[in-house]
Parts: sequence; structure tokens; C-alpha cells
Amino acid sequence: MPYELYYWPGIQGRGEFVRLALEEAGADYVDVARERGPGRGVKALMAMLNGGAAPPFAPPFLRDGDMVVSHVANILHYLGPRLGLAPADEAQRIFAHGLQLTITDFVAEAHDTHHPIATDLYYEDQKTEAKARAAAFLAHRVPKYFGYFDRVLTDNPTGAAHAVGSALTSVDLSLFQIWAGMTYAFPRAFADAATLYPRVAALAAQVAARPNVARYLASERRIPFNESGVFRHYPELDQEPGARRRRS
Amino acid sequence: MPYELYYWPGIQGRGEFVRLALEEAGADYVDVARERGPGRGVKALMAMLNGGAAPPFAPPFLRDGDMVVSHVANILHYLGPRLGLAPADEAQRIFAHGLQLTITDFVAEAHDTHHPIATDLYYEDQKTEAKARAAAFLAHRVPKYFGYFDRVLTDNPTGAAHAVGSALTSVDLSLFQIWAGMTYAFPRAFADAATLYPRVAALAAQVAARPNVARYLASERRIPFNESGVFRHYPELDQEPGARRRRS
Repeated sequence: MPYELYYWPGIQGRGEFVRLALEEAGADYVDVARERGPGRGVKALMAMLNGGAAPPFAPPFLRDGDMVVSHVANILHYLGPRLGLAPADEAQRIFAHGLQLTITDFVAEAHDTHHPIATDLYYEDQKTEAKARAAAFLAHRVPKYFGYFDRVLTDNPTGAAHAVGSALTSVDLSLFQIWAGMTYAFPRAFADAATLYPRVAALAAQVAARPNVARYLASERRIPFNESGVFRHYPELDQEPGARRRRS
Repeated sequence: MPYELYYWPGIQGRGEFVRLALEEAGADYVDVARERGPGRGVKALMAMLNGGAAPPFAPPFLRDGDMVVSHVANILHYLGPRLGLAPADEAQRIFAHGLQLTITDFVAEAHDTHHPIATDLYYEDQKTEAKARAAAFLAHRVPKYFGYFDRVLTDNPTGAAHAVGSALTSVDLSLFQIWAGMTYAFPRAFADAATLYPRVAALAAQVAARPNVARYLASERRIPFNESGVFRHYPELDQEPGARRRRS
């Protein structure tokens, strides 16, 4: 039976981290809300949120037979061993899960650059605050997170090709995704990122070149970035790359 | 060898969710940054962040022999089976981890009520934005989260005494903590919470009355809530309890 991924149909969003793992592994899966027919579509997603015991709080969630797994990091922790995308060693698996949760935090902060006051309000109604939050994000948070990820790659005793251990994990795929997201959302501020974080840049390029990932990225299954997702390109929130250094 | 918890010494913060699990289980642990001597204190915490391979991104993290586990949900997922605070069933354990991650998201949103623009800036420098974010948090997010948790308790096929299954898990302890935090930070807005979310209220009361938890809460090991932690009481951010209903 195929895995069922439940996520909003029109955006990459948080669901994309799961899609990348399923695609890289060549797993049999259904992107439920993007399909039509019985048990498919956004209706099926809403039915899962509103009905039955042990409902998820929000998408994305994954159904695997009787199992329902919610939250990106939880889903990837569940799928990892099944898809061959998790380290075999327990300490490494725990470290990988911690990295995935750090990526989760980064994604929430990236989202809040355009919604610093309320998720329920339009971006246009919190644009002034968004400019202030985006400036702080680019000046302080992005260097902190990406500096950390670059250091993790540098410190990997088996080499900088992967975040954890000597083989691909879902953490590598997720690092590619936040790299791609930053490149889309903040093309000016992130323009010198490959110089500042060369190991993350190299990893992102290697992930993008993997046959299954490359095929997916070129397919219609990959929803283009847009201004409804987590990573949005609003030119007024972007900055010069040097802004970070002048401010600190 | 005792567990070593690494967290900032002056606040409950995110470390408190781990402390509660260790205290309820009567586990042997050291709250490293609050102790003095070699290998203790904030210096020891900073050394772990800055040195060695596989460093954590931020506190809290737990050391158990050679294992280093970072992020609250990851730590509780690790400790759960060891402390008898996790369900034995896999599907329930996965559901519990999802709930813990939902609590993680709630905690981040509670934090951002007083820091909506930048963690690096003082509260006083983002007070206007904090008022707007706190209003939206109280009007929309708190009802969404606590309504969800109350429903999870209602839907538990083994009864509303616990979030998952028929025994105490770290999710129950964490629900107590966010209940206590909201009661401290927003005493007016949260005044009618026991009416709105009666099952979460009952669970929080039951957790507080457990002998080990009660002994801990009355001890000096429990740091009082204060205005450096996640849950801060700033009267100007609080609201009338009815504000939520008038706004929606």
C-alpha cells in the first residue's frame, strides 16, 4: 500500500521536506490533497483533521496503513529507517533528529519573516513589522543557523559530504530545501551564501544533482516556489548581502 | 552515572519540560549549569556548545554517557522509555511524539508574544509589536491549541486522564507546564480556561498533585517563573478573557 502524504496542494511548504525523502527513495506514495476521486483531495485532508481519534494538529501528516504520523521531523524519523535515509547507529540517529528539529525551528523563523504578528492576517497588514523581522532574521539568525550547519558538515569525522555519517539522510535533503528556499526568497541577501557556507552550498548542489531528486525537481510534482508558501520572495524584505556585517 | 541536563540556570524555559520528566521519574540527574565546580556551571554548557563534534545548536540538551541529545522533544523521546514515561505501543509513541512537537510549536509562539521582531532586541524595543502579536495569540492561537489538546483528551479511548494511553507520559507533564505558564503569563486572558478546556485543566491539576511533582514544585529546584523565561507576565500584553470571543 502506498504511503499517503497529507498536505496543502498549492505550496511546497513544510510538506516538501517529506516529498523530497519519498522522491529520493523512489517510494510509492500518494500526495492525497493533490489527487481527485474518493478519499482524495483537500476534503480527505480535512476529514483526517476533524474525524477520528488521535487527530493531527495540522498538516503535513503521513498515513502508513493504520499509522498516522504528524510533524515533519516525526515523519522523517519514522520514514528514515524504512526508506534507507537514516543512520544505523543510535547516537547518529538521535543527532540527525536533533538537526531535523533545528531545521524545523529555522523554517518557522523563515515563515515569520512575512507573518511576524499573526498567521490569520494578510502579509500586507503586517508589512512594516515584516521588514523589521526580516532584517533581524537576515542579520543574525541566518548566519547563526547556516554557520552552525556548515560547522556540522566540517566536523563530520567521515567527511563534509553529509550532515550525519557517510551516507545520505533526510537531513541532507532538508538542508538542500532550506538552501533552495533562501535562494528563492532572499536572492540578494543570500547572494554570497556559497562563500560564507561553502560546505552547505556543496551539499545542496550534490543533493540537487542526485538522479531521483533531479528528476523530481524537473517534474510537475515539484510545485514552484510561490507567495503562499514558507519561503516567499517579497523584494521589499530582501537586503544587500553586506547588511549582516554592517549591523553586527 | 546521573543524567546531565544542560540549560540556562536562571529560568524554567524550555529546560523545564525535561526537568519535570526527570523529577517525576525520580531520576538521578545533574542540572549542570546550576552547579559549581569542575565540569559544572554555564562554562561547562558553553564548552559543550563550542567544542567537539556533533554539537547541539542550543540548550537544552542532555548528556547520558556518550549520548548527547538536543531539543526538548528529542530528549523526551529518548528519556521516555528509560523513565517509564512513554507508551509501549509504537503507534501511541509516535502520536505522543507528534503531540510533544505540537507543544514545542506552542512554546515558540508563546515566546514570540514578547519577542515578535527579534530575539536579540529587548522587549521594550518591540513592545508595540508584542501587543499586536499577544492579542492575536490570545484570540486565535491559544483557543486553537488548547481546544485541540482538550479534544485529544476527550477522544482518548482509555479515558481523559492522560493524553496518550492509560498511563502518565511526558506529554501530560508538558501539558501541565504550558497550563502553568499561561496561568502565570496571562492571568486575565486565561482566567476562564478551566471552563473552556476542562479536561486539560483537570489533567494539569492531577499532574501538580503527583507526589514527586508536588515535592519538586515546592522545592528550590523549581525556579520561579520570571521575566527572562518563555512565559512572562507583562500586564500590558494580557487581555480580558472575553477578547477572544469578541474578535472572532
